[in-house]
Amino acid sequence: LAAAVDQILEGNRRAIARLISQLENNQPAALDILAELYPHTGQAYLVGITGAPGTGKSTLVNELAKLYRGQHQTVAILSIDPTSPFTGGAILGDRIRLKDLAGDSGIFIRSMATRGSLGGLARAAADAITVFDAASFEIIIIETVGVGQAEVEIARLAHSVIVVEVPGLGDEVQAIKAGLLEIADVFVVNKADRDGVDRTVAALKMMLDLTRDSPAKPMLHHGVVMDISPPPSSPAAEIRWQPPICKTIATTGAGVDTVIEALTQHRAYQQSSGLLGQREQTRLLFEIEQILKERLLAGLMSKLSQTQFNDILTQVTERQLDPYTAVETLLRLGENQKS
Amino acid sequence: LAAAVDQILEGNRRAIARLISQLENNQPAALDILAELYPHTGQAYLVGITGAPGTGKSTLVNELAKLYRGQHQTVAILSIDPTSPFTGGAILGDRIRLKDLAGDSGIFIRSMATRGSLGGLARAAADAITVFDAASFEIIIIETVGVGQAEVEIARLAHSVIVVEVPGLGDEVQAIKAGLLEIADVFVVNKADRDGVDRTVAALKMMLDLTRDSPAKPMLHHGVVMDISPPPSSPAAEIRWQPPICKTIATTGAGVDTVIEALTQHRAYQQSSGLLGQREQTRLLFEIEQILKERLLAGLMSKLSQTQFNDILTQVTERQLDPYTAVETLLRLGENQKS
Repeated sequence: LAAAVDQILEGNRRAIARLISQLENNQPAALDILAELYPHTGQAYLVGITGAPGTGKSTLVNELAKLYRGQHQTVAILSIDPTSPFTGGAILGDRIRLKDLAGDSGIFIRSMATRGSLGGLARAAADAITVFDAASFEIIIIETVGVGQAEVEIARLAHSVIVVEVPGLGDEVQAIKAGLLEIADVFVVNKADRDGVDRTVAALKMMLDLTRDSPAKPMLHHGVVMDISPPPSSPAAEIRWQPPICKTIATTGAGVDTVIEALTQHRAYQQSSGLLGQREQTRLLFEIEQILKERLLAGLMSKLSQTQFNDILTQVTERQLDPYTAVETLLRLGENQKS
Repeated sequence: LAAAVDQILEGNRRAIARLISQLENNQPAALDILAELYPHTGQAYLVGITGAPGTGKSTLVNELAKLYRGQHQTVAILSIDPTSPFTGGAILGDRIRLKDLAGDSGIFIRSMATRGSLGGLARAAADAITVFDAASFEIIIIETVGVGQAEVEIARLAHSVIVVEVPGLGDEVQAIKAGLLEIADVFVVNKADRDGVDRTVAALKMMLDLTRDSPAKPMLHHGVVMDISPPPSSPAAEIRWQPPICKTIATTGAGVDTVIEALTQHRAYQQSSGLLGQREQTRLLFEIEQILKERLLAGLMSKLSQTQFNDILTQVTERQLDPYTAVETLLRLGENQKS
């Protein structure tokens, strides 16, 4: 155990990769290592990046990583590809990347496909972040390939969230944009050599102006656990962050330095305002909630027999019992089992 | 209660809309109505539709609905827009649709934005499906705007899953395609008047041929609950379904009839093979799991004081306690509270 912990803290790449795989596969021994690593975390800065497919997120992430490396910062990239349930995208992504960034020990790239359950993905991502943080990676970029609730939930838990747009996408994408607007700390309009880039920037500005005078964002709600008292407010937090809009051509690297600059400013803003601590708390709360749900479910299932469970399920499929009443019945069976 | 139940069974639109809203807002009285409605469900056929933004899913769904209406079938459309956490897309979607399909009492369109938690969205979608089913809508189309794990999970729980592609999207989209391939029962290549349509169809065919000789799909795994015995296999189930590829131009309606035909064939295949019952069981199991997790978490939180919970959270944010150990501590506190 101590040896494995030391290897991670020293940044041993093989040990990092192995531990993340073990955590993905729910190996109990890996959790012991994670517990030992945890006191060594909390130093990394987490950058989330999201946006519709085809906006060039992966290329942008590569360029960001290169620039950070130029500043002698170490970078871990966690690429989350939840639309690939069994095989596919995640591996492809790794292959494309390795060409460009291979051989640099200050960069670590890890792809993660779906974990079977909705909460499982969020938990596996959180575990990987803990490992990277303990291994002293200074910047952790969390990139999502899919654009859905799970991905947005994960990306928004980062300290800074980049939302990538491109000029001239259709109506459906506009609708998505409305939702992403509210989680963006930095906007990037990529493929800025395309027609319509100024129109896209103007549209984003208009949307930002519309929301500027509205009341502050409601605190993120992640279910039951989220009912905690708000952190003490500081005067600086009253000055709202206005998300900058950066124009980039990721394929040539043009404008990527402005994204780094925007992230640096946002980080400074969050540190001085005390909002960083608030985000960190939200992130850990979300992580605890995912683990709690899995553990509670496993705990209940261990108390029920397969026959008990299948009987209830059959009653539901035959419409003799509705799913909510079925759940209450299962909970009651679990209670009785205990006493 | 009885009056509300009757109104839904009679298809009263105002009552349907109100009940779905009440269920979204977790109103306990609504669950009583749902329990009464449940024995009247199980008749509707569920069609899931997913694909990258910009593929024209919404237009295709409208055209499918029109054709089904031409066959005198009633249609409910559940549009899930999870990337819009607070406002936005869902409402926009409704407005665009209503122009075209308004005034037809055989069509009901409902948009659903995120429900705060990952599982909450899946549960709210399941509730809406129950209401539509009880209100005797014969076809329920579940359309997702986002393309992520939550959306794919929801879409794949339908009886037939349509995956929409368009000619000539980038590499990132290809990666997504690899994942969606495995959940598709029917492929639609929309915008078939665009360049490269034959290449897209050929690529899909090649991917399908590659998987044809591979072993049957593993049973979907949705976490702990999913460990049930497989349903009895029937001889017909041995003949694997080969997903057809339909070319459409949804904006003109061209080819949409071939999609309806493919769905009809898939439905017949599933009924004769017994796979329909298996899918229905998987769907209800997933629904039960979501409700169970929420209820278990709420049950634990009700046993803990705010102070107890905040103390643990503070220890985690200060890195004195890792999240997994924190969860075990919370579970123990909950246990002690009971006795």
